[in-house]
Amino acid sequence: MIQDAQAVIDRLRRTIDTVIGAEDLLDRLRSGRPLRIKYGVDCTAPELHLGHAVNLWMMRGLQDLGHKVVFLLGDLTTRIGDPTGRSETRPTLSPEEIEVNAAAFLDQVALVLRTDPAVFEVRRNSEWYGGMDVATLLGLFSQVTHAQLVARDMFRARIAAGREIALHELTYPVLQGYDSFAMKSDLTIVGSDQLFNEQLGRHFQQRLGAAPQVVVTSTITPGIDGGPKQSKSLRNYIALTDSPKDKFGKLMSLPDDLVETYARVYTELPLSTVAALGGSAAVGGPAARDAKLQLAAAVVTRYHGAGAARAELDAFTRVFSERAEPEDIPAVVVSTASPTTLQLLQAARPDDSNSELRRLIRQGAVTIDGTKSTDPDEKPTLQPDTILRSGRRTWHRIRLR
Amino acid sequence: MIQDAQAVIDRLRRTIDTVIGAEDLLDRLRSGRPLRIKYGVDCTAPELHLGHAVNLWMMRGLQDLGHKVVFLLGDLTTRIGDPTGRSETRPTLSPEEIEVNAAAFLDQVALVLRTDPAVFEVRRNSEWYGGMDVATLLGLFSQVTHAQLVARDMFRARIAAGREIALHELTYPVLQGYDSFAMKSDLTIVGSDQLFNEQLGRHFQQRLGAAPQVVVTSTITPGIDGGPKQSKSLRNYIALTDSPKDKFGKLMSLPDDLVETYARVYTELPLSTVAALGGSAAVGGPAARDAKLQLAAAVVTRYHGAGAARAELDAFTRVFSERAEPEDIPAVVVSTASPTTLQLLQAARPDDSNSELRRLIRQGAVTIDGTKSTDPDEKPTLQPDTILRSGRRTWHRIRLR
Repeated sequence: MIQDAQAVIDRLRRTIDTVIGAEDLLDRLRSGRPLRIKYGVDCTAPELHLGHAVNLWMMRGLQDLGHKVVFLLGDLTTRIGDPTGRSETRPTLSPEEIEVNAAAFLDQVALVLRTDPAVFEVRRNSEWYGGMDVATLLGLFSQVTHAQLVARDMFRARIAAGREIALHELTYPVLQGYDSFAMKSDLTIVGSDQLFNEQLGRHFQQRLGAAPQVVVTSTITPGIDGGPKQSKSLRNYIALTDSPKDKFGKLMSLPDDLVETYARVYTELPLSTVAALGGSAAVGGPAARDAKLQLAAAVVTRYHGAGAARAELDAFTRVFSERAEPEDIPAVVVSTASPTTLQLLQAARPDDSNSELRRLIRQGAVTIDGTKSTDPDEKPTLQPDTILRSGRRTWHRIRLR
Repeated sequence: MIQDAQAVIDRLRRTIDTVIGAEDLLDRLRSGRPLRIKYGVDCTAPELHLGHAVNLWMMRGLQDLGHKVVFLLGDLTTRIGDPTGRSETRPTLSPEEIEVNAAAFLDQVALVLRTDPAVFEVRRNSEWYGGMDVATLLGLFSQVTHAQLVARDMFRARIAAGREIALHELTYPVLQGYDSFAMKSDLTIVGSDQLFNEQLGRHFQQRLGAAPQVVVTSTITPGIDGGPKQSKSLRNYIALTDSPKDKFGKLMSLPDDLVETYARVYTELPLSTVAALGGSAAVGGPAARDAKLQLAAAVVTRYHGAGAARAELDAFTRVFSERAEPEDIPAVVVSTASPTTLQLLQAARPDDSNSELRRLIRQGAVTIDGTKSTDPDEKPTLQPDTILRSGRRTWHRIRLR
């Protein structure tokens, strides 16, 4: 299993932000020993998204070389609740909820990681905290100072804002740090918001006479709305469990300026292709649309295979061409001063009965300048060149007399 | 056991500073139920002094009415170390050291408290912390916020000074607080430096559905050197284990302006007598000395009985009269410009041989204005009216020509 260590790191570099202990990482990769890669999670209801998967794919790459991912379910620490990124104290979870979430986590992780025992091991931190007595825990606490903990940006922010930090939350990083010692972690790959806690892991390993783990952080990538990160509460993410259709659709709605970043961190497209896609996206219009099609196809291929990607491409093209307004749209002259939706439709489709037209409106098949109108008696605001669509393939241009 | 509750409190009031929950105290005293009085200690090497005994005598008074002192050995929390009043983190103690200290504590406490099981119970907080698991402890921590803890004056001072607080020290008040719940404390009588921790006790009892303990604090009384409090490190205290002779002697060395305070808090002399002693002390000279004799006799009586006090009074009077300078001291004229101690002695005692005089000096039997001179060739600084004493009962007044 001896690998060209530098080559391994170069492959990972595409999505690496920082490495704490880079020399150690080279040494350990060169040793030929399978590394233990800590992948620790809280057992809250999971919904892994493309952002999480960046780290998972790095781990998967290491698994493919024979290294082992130790998937650590923080079943005990979940009862505390990771205060990261939270401005308020989190409600605690029951043991039953934790077990349900743990099972769901495993299902989702398996969408990227290999789960054969040679390269995958599941542990729970209740294994060491469950039997630990109060005096031993306080002994761990004696290894860490108050100043070290409140230096953490998130705690500082809460203190500055006058918001509460419960004492159990203050101890969370200590427990997460000690996990690294207890599970003999060589390496952990985390988002940069976990850097503080994992550096405490190095602190404990050194204090307790073990070699400190290497900490790799990945860049946090923006949400599909251009927000700072993908987040469940903002609903601006692409879940690993999203259908191929949803993944494809969400990527097609991406702001043009994110195409290159997404292609770099969420696909394995060659970096030259990534740059080309970024260039096309910057042009806008049909070029940007085509770049997104290629990005969306690459992401769907990664998770669902080339067949699924092909199917989504075809479907999108079909719908898109159906939805496009034809170039020659017949004009309809309306003489009513402030016409209702029904009156517009009567003018456009004089052969249809009023009840048919009302049904069409109520079904949601009528849009006025792209906005659905479902009330026949609504008086929509009309522009000089308003487009009325009724049914899938009928358009009229409204001219007011 | 129904008592006039207000009368009980009035008796205690002499040494009470504040009462948190005064109404509850009245109600509970009126209930007729024997109260559980928390007396919690750290199992560090004890040396109880008169300052500690103020609280013990209040508890003793309640024991005499049938209430029970629950002597809580903080054997587990001692392994953390109470950070109160400490600017540095304290080294932890071994279980063996803790047991030795606990035994010594019981011996000293028994100098004031009654130890019959009807009114005295010994508990250890390892009883509840020993079997507690990590999740339960963290549950306790969730009841307290970081802001509550760092509000404590001692923590604030350390933070301001940039000194370290280890995380385990930050948890100390929480554990001391929970003790009150676990041991069903009705009342605790503490120094005002423990008020914060014991208020956390009330917090836990309320959170966990129990009635909160009453917290009585006593005033902290000054050290025998007039310093802010009696303290082991300052060696300015009167230990309960000091001999009657040492107690008596230390009290005779008290600054005049402390006589009234000491008489009020360390004796049961009537308050009118206390006031009179304060008045005499303010006069100074023999009046102040006599006031201290009365104070010292009252304190020794309290701890060792009237016989011991009488013996110390007699001994002190005897030594004092021996030491006092007689009113008519013969003058000696010395003509040497800057005489040595030997030359002074030769002038004062012309009949003694030089070797006899040298021996007297070397034995330490010679003082010049009260300062011992043990070197015959020393040239002491002489005042216009210097008193030379040689041997126990020989004085001379030096006149320089």
